[in-house]
Amino acid sequence: MKTFGGFRSGNEFFYGELRGDKVHRLSQPYWIALEPTGETLPLANLQIDVPVAPSKLIAVGLNYAEHIAEMKRTEIGAPLIWFKAPSSLLAHTGVIEIAFPDHKTDFETELAVVIGSPAKNVSADDALNRIFGYTIALDITDRDLQKQEKQFGRCKSFDTYTPVGPFVHAGADVRDVPIKLWQNRELRQRARTNQMIHSISQIIAFVSQSLTLLPGDVILTGTPAGVGPIRAGDELEAKIGDWPPLRNTVANAQ
Amino acid sequence: MKTFGGFRSGNEFFYGELRGDKVHRLSQPYWIALEPTGETLPLANLQIDVPVAPSKLIAVGLNYAEHIAEMKRTEIGAPLIWFKAPSSLLAHTGVIEIAFPDHKTDFETELAVVIGSPAKNVSADDALNRIFGYTIALDITDRDLQKQEKQFGRCKSFDTYTPVGPFVHAGADVRDVPIKLWQNRELRQRARTNQMIHSISQIIAFVSQSLTLLPGDVILTGTPAGVGPIRAGDELEAKIGDWPPLRNTVANAQ
Repeated sequence: MKTFGGFRSGNEFFYGELRGDKVHRLSQPYWIALEPTGETLPLANLQIDVPVAPSKLIAVGLNYAEHIAEMKRTEIGAPLIWFKAPSSLLAHTGVIEIAFPDHKTDFETELAVVIGSPAKNVSADDALNRIFGYTIALDITDRDLQKQEKQFGRCKSFDTYTPVGPFVHAGADVRDVPIKLWQNRELRQRARTNQMIHSISQIIAFVSQSLTLLPGDVILTGTPAGVGPIRAGDELEAKIGDWPPLRNTVANAQ
Repeated sequence: MKTFGGFRSGNEFFYGELRGDKVHRLSQPYWIALEPTGETLPLANLQIDVPVAPSKLIAVGLNYAEHIAEMKRTEIGAPLIWFKAPSSLLAHTGVIEIAFPDHKTDFETELAVVIGSPAKNVSADDALNRIFGYTIALDITDRDLQKQEKQFGRCKSFDTYTPVGPFVHAGADVRDVPIKLWQNRELRQRARTNQMIHSISQIIAFVSQSLTLLPGDVILTGTPAGVGPIRAGDELEAKIGDWPPLRNTVANAQ
């Protein structure tokens, strides 16, 4: 298993491979080419930044039975997808800014897939070959706007509404790993990825129907049950398998 | 008024400013910087390619009263937006490939806005300052999937479902210009942009609420009435004001 990320040193941003406590700097995004510059930096001296820069940020809905039940929705027999604004991405330790503090705004914890090679009309059998790696993401959702507008794009696309990271894990086996979310140290979401209704292979096959997935594109694979509202001052910690957790805090937008 | 575009010479793609029948090559996308390389090429020797490369491709629905009526929908008092996949963009003269030939798949003709400078929480008064220019776009829509999935992202995001161009017009006055679509030389859509329910300023102010618009981002401002199904063999011609028309043909995806 290899680990990649986006890092910042002062004003300079770069991608790198993390080995132990050292970041091996890359000359290009890792999903484009694995070209080390030869430079190695201690992780402790760097800021962890957003590890992805997708041309498309895709979300899947209704992919865990207990979440469908808690939302009082019904399973529709195929993945339900929509697009989020990539400008909503937020780094590990970044502050989620609630856009409309008088609206109910929920956390949703999701396993995210980073695409590694172009995919169009791929079969489920071939889908896993198109994956670069996996990461942790939150799909922050304004429930009031979701109910009012019916469309799922805008209510999940405000700036900071897609925390992601801290790192991207290539070669991970995510078929049956725990996915958990703590809010202020209380466990709120707890499931296993094998409870997904549509597997990652099936999702990629479905999404790539007549639609080209490009290297670097990101797919959020749906939240398990236990979603709930966030409030200013909250501390969120999301964990999948044994990866370093994704931690974010919450504030009201100014 | 200045005119910009994306051009191809063999395998090489570049952005340029069109003056008369000459393309003045730029070293960067025009929405990043207007830096001429000094090279000038005859338009006749070039292929016209997609003139935009947005980090977000945003669509607005229900923005002309007669279209709302023909869709049997109701006005919701605010713009309704969603995100399309940028991988759906198609150049002038490109072939629209119907993803599911057994589904009803409609053309929708729209005035598209190209953002020129970052915009977040801008007022309607300030919104026009954030625009680089305007172009013509089609928002091809799979009505069967739209009805079935309710979400408007996927059904409008298959490859080739967003023809755009041929050029981007900076400094144009689009407050009251004709917008028309011919299908096989028969006029199908005919309206004026002053019939929009939400003006371009209002749309940008709304979209930029808590969501950062970036230079190069594209907003489709909604279709007037007259939308209808496309079929393999069709020739579409869309025209706004006195700009060169956007022409595309239609085939079934293989």
